[in-house]
Amino acid sequence: MDPHHDGSPLYVSTQTPVLGERVTVRVRIPHSLGPVENVRTRSNPDHEPRFTVATKIVSLDGWDWWEAEVEVENPIHGYRFLIALADGSKTWLNASGYHRIETLDSEDFKLLTYPAPPEWGRASVMYQIFPDRFARSRAADDRELPEWAEPAEWTDEPIHIGPSTARQFYGGDLEGIVEHLDHLEHLGITMIYLTPVFPARSNHRYDALSFAEVDPLLGGDQALVDLVRVAHDRGFTVIGDLTSNHSGDAHEWFQASHLKPGAPESEFYYWLDENQEHYASWLGVPSLPKFNWASQELRDRFIEGPDSVVAKWLGEPYNLDGWRIDVANMTGRYLDTDLNADVRRIIRQTMIDVNPDTILLGESTNDATGDFQGDAWHGAMTYSNFTRPIWGWLSERERESSYFGLPFGTIPSYTGREVFAAHNQFTAGFPWRVRLHTMNALDTHDTPRFLTHAVPGSVPVAFGLSVTLPGIPVIFAGDEFGLVGDDGEHSRSPLPWDSIADSRATIDLYTELIHLRTSHVALNEGGIRWIHVGDDVLVYVREHPQESLLVLAARDDFDVLFESDVLAGLASAQRLFGDAKLTEGHLSGTGPTFGVWKLPGIVLPAG
Amino acid sequence: MDPHHDGSPLYVSTQTPVLGERVTVRVRIPHSLGPVENVRTRSNPDHEPRFTVATKIVSLDGWDWWEAEVEVENPIHGYRFLIALADGSKTWLNASGYHRIETLDSEDFKLLTYPAPPEWGRASVMYQIFPDRFARSRAADDRELPEWAEPAEWTDEPIHIGPSTARQFYGGDLEGIVEHLDHLEHLGITMIYLTPVFPARSNHRYDALSFAEVDPLLGGDQALVDLVRVAHDRGFTVIGDLTSNHSGDAHEWFQASHLKPGAPESEFYYWLDENQEHYASWLGVPSLPKFNWASQELRDRFIEGPDSVVAKWLGEPYNLDGWRIDVANMTGRYLDTDLNADVRRIIRQTMIDVNPDTILLGESTNDATGDFQGDAWHGAMTYSNFTRPIWGWLSERERESSYFGLPFGTIPSYTGREVFAAHNQFTAGFPWRVRLHTMNALDTHDTPRFLTHAVPGSVPVAFGLSVTLPGIPVIFAGDEFGLVGDDGEHSRSPLPWDSIADSRATIDLYTELIHLRTSHVALNEGGIRWIHVGDDVLVYVREHPQESLLVLAARDDFDVLFESDVLAGLASAQRLFGDAKLTEGHLSGTGPTFGVWKLPGIVLPAG
Repeated sequence: MDPHHDGSPLYVSTQTPVLGERVTVRVRIPHSLGPVENVRTRSNPDHEPRFTVATKIVSLDGWDWWEAEVEVENPIHGYRFLIALADGSKTWLNASGYHRIETLDSEDFKLLTYPAPPEWGRASVMYQIFPDRFARSRAADDRELPEWAEPAEWTDEPIHIGPSTARQFYGGDLEGIVEHLDHLEHLGITMIYLTPVFPARSNHRYDALSFAEVDPLLGGDQALVDLVRVAHDRGFTVIGDLTSNHSGDAHEWFQASHLKPGAPESEFYYWLDENQEHYASWLGVPSLPKFNWASQELRDRFIEGPDSVVAKWLGEPYNLDGWRIDVANMTGRYLDTDLNADVRRIIRQTMIDVNPDTILLGESTNDATGDFQGDAWHGAMTYSNFTRPIWGWLSERERESSYFGLPFGTIPSYTGREVFAAHNQFTAGFPWRVRLHTMNALDTHDTPRFLTHAVPGSVPVAFGLSVTLPGIPVIFAGDEFGLVGDDGEHSRSPLPWDSIADSRATIDLYTELIHLRTSHVALNEGGIRWIHVGDDVLVYVREHPQESLLVLAARDDFDVLFESDVLAGLASAQRLFGDAKLTEGHLSGTGPTFGVWKLPGIVLPAG
Repeated sequence: MDPHHDGSPLYVSTQTPVLGERVTVRVRIPHSLGPVENVRTRSNPDHEPRFTVATKIVSLDGWDWWEAEVEVENPIHGYRFLIALADGSKTWLNASGYHRIETLDSEDFKLLTYPAPPEWGRASVMYQIFPDRFARSRAADDRELPEWAEPAEWTDEPIHIGPSTARQFYGGDLEGIVEHLDHLEHLGITMIYLTPVFPARSNHRYDALSFAEVDPLLGGDQALVDLVRVAHDRGFTVIGDLTSNHSGDAHEWFQASHLKPGAPESEFYYWLDENQEHYASWLGVPSLPKFNWASQELRDRFIEGPDSVVAKWLGEPYNLDGWRIDVANMTGRYLDTDLNADVRRIIRQTMIDVNPDTILLGESTNDATGDFQGDAWHGAMTYSNFTRPIWGWLSERERESSYFGLPFGTIPSYTGREVFAAHNQFTAGFPWRVRLHTMNALDTHDTPRFLTHAVPGSVPVAFGLSVTLPGIPVIFAGDEFGLVGDDGEHSRSPLPWDSIADSRATIDLYTELIHLRTSHVALNEGGIRWIHVGDDVLVYVREHPQESLLVLAARDDFDVLFESDVLAGLASAQRLFGDAKLTEGHLSGTGPTFGVWKLPGIVLPAG
């Protein structure tokens, strides 16, 4: 039982502070810690410590609540708490926890004055669609395939090694998505994320040959207009996918400059010889030449201003609700050049100018805390804080498998304590707001499907964690069908619409958990306090003035006793999910299992 | 016994890599860890993981040494090791230690391609002089005091509260320093750091009224020329102190612009009203107006190019060997502006253009890891990683005292384990090269004197740690006289030259430890491996191809058994300092005590 604070409304008086604003921050300290002499905040404006003194406002259910003012002096305003106990010890509370030694600036709590993400962002449940594999409309039959494409039957196995991998073409299209919006509405998702829809020379389309039109093989521009319109009618948002790090080598800009010194587009790429034959590319793959963001002309065409690619697709008649940016981590970085911050801020500013009610997510598959400080990216598509730890906890032992991004050969085995440690380490550096918009994906188009190696019965636990931990839950289309796949390519199998009835139980599970998420504000924006961390069981509570949700995730049988004051309101707990047994201070049951209970919200006296 | 790597020559093939270079890195893994399946490096070029495979090169004294190549792709090239054990577990080694879970980018080992610090930097022992209090020459008697100055007798107690604090003027001068260079030569120090020597309206001179001349009260320009010349003759380097964050309000640039809209110097400061009456200042202190580094004219005059202040004093006839930059952490930072990286890089580039064989240290009194990544500052004057933890370990309990920079009221009590944890946490983020140039100060002109509250007998332990941990040892002038002082002001008492005989034992102790430092390359650039961390005793070894030094620091009686393979060569250990008892695998004695033994160096076969 440690003192607690986080960035949620219970603890911070505003989620959208402005420079110079005095924000009220609160910290709760358990009586069991012993008498407290005083409590201070320690801010770090201009990287120099500044302190304010807190006052005790209320004693509630075994906790004292203290409150202080913090003046927001920089766009990223870090702060932590300094708690002096009556026994003389001085302790620190920051985003990584409660410490007896001084702490790092990078793990301070943070207030942000950058323009806020859209209101709907943190309340989203994302459904990721890889268009070639989601659904194929009748219209696809009439389309002539380009030379590179190798047509596949919808029921074929995806090829996952060799040159045909990217050429195998199933012909899923945007009209196909429109035809299945009933399914998405039934599931209860709120946001559709489309991997790239621009023309390319592969089924994944991350090698764009133009950003000026939607691939005719997907139905062209009008199909996107139609999809977004009907999706909006049903209450979905729709975001696209841009490759800001590279284009395809068939891209019109690359074609205009490759081997053509003097062409205006020459400055868009990094040439390695005067003849403009050789060039820098994504991980050395020649088909993906890397953009040189020192070029203002590239910025103007692609990301900056109302005529840019970034702007075009957010405006009429397309009206996308945001972008997911591919390889955001590498964008603008090359040798001794690092223009990443410029690029991401320009992208976001252009979006704000067109439509501020849009979201910007960036791919950064490992530690994302460095770039994701709220100045541009609202949240990260990353695998360090959620995906890989959960795989480690809930996968069968010693199965050979791709472990995305790491050359492990097998999925490592994590204890619950290690899951917590990894999750805590890789989220402590995020401002709270960024954490709420970071994607909690069990899998994506780049990874094996989680289910492939999952401990039997653990899907409710895994997806339950996705919908209840801070962040945006993600369903990679097909997860709800119980699809498997042992690497990113294999995971892109077409959705088996014809046998959907066989997947009813899994779809029902996903539907129930998605609705659980979307019907509880505490899951969208409530604080998180860990109640119990064991090797086989994790218990936390998402707390909010309106309600609190107690969450249990277990991979094996469990019997957990709480310390008495850790959580109030247990007597009136209302079961929302699962069949674990909860009595006052005691959780038990057989695992794997997942459970959620609703408790009263926490209402503090007005400050 | 964990696997080990650090940035020292034993483990890294070059200390001055260039972009594109393939650097060889080595890691040692104890046999006791069990069979190892493979070892990889994981770099992070452009923030995207890249792996190379290591090969085992030798088995030596219970350790296997593995070696791999790392291609340096960015100016700060982060890397870590991924060790796969035969039992299936995958583990990580980074600058913070050995981990079962993935680790943060910020704690990667780092190779730097920025221009290297001067060769002499890491071999320095710094002696900090506060000119008004060091020594007063006869010439001072003839100088007329300015109106602000309140003359004091050399034996007066420093005033440490109220307006007279900064006005109390003892009249120490640069000629006084020249007169006592014998003392410094006897001590064995190598670098003199002078706090500001520019004219001001205080005894500390951090409120400069010009950077164009040396304060006539210190002897003027010629006195600095003379001091540096004779210091160089004796083999000392001499560095100055610049306030890049602010000037004094009597500064010629401020006087030219205050209340004078339209003056060219107006752009040098942050005005809060059109009339240029009110302005931003250091912590709101009106006598210290804050510089606005958006001004190119300010850059030209102060830090950029051969006619700048930064350049002038490094060139003929002054020939300073570098700068310590005051409040480096706040410099260029104000509200939503952050020009800190620009300013520090310009300062360093100007220095390189005048004389690359100079050093640049920056003050950043708390967590310095964010700004100190090797692009400009060679090292930090900080209190988080050394000063405060050592105070916490070696001070008497519950003594009221200023604990520099923190509102504690007392010095907190640290266990040895906490000292290690704090030291490790606040150094893990530094590139190795920065760590070697970071100041290990027990105290400075801003803090209480360490001795004031020290556990009796602990000075050898404390200063022993200063000279043997990676970093530049610091003697704040007067420490070697056994001076005390309970806050930064009080610590600035004049040096008691007349009673120097009374301080002979302390001076001898300092002299012995300083010579220990300067005569052992392993202390300048050897790796560091912790052998034992207990609450009352710390043991580590500084390892180098030429020699290894075993270091013991104990605050109480101790009896430490090593694991058998932790350290080779103990049988031939040669005592260099202290009287602790060392037998094979066993250290014992009464504390507080400090001990150093010389062991054979580690010689690996050519790669």
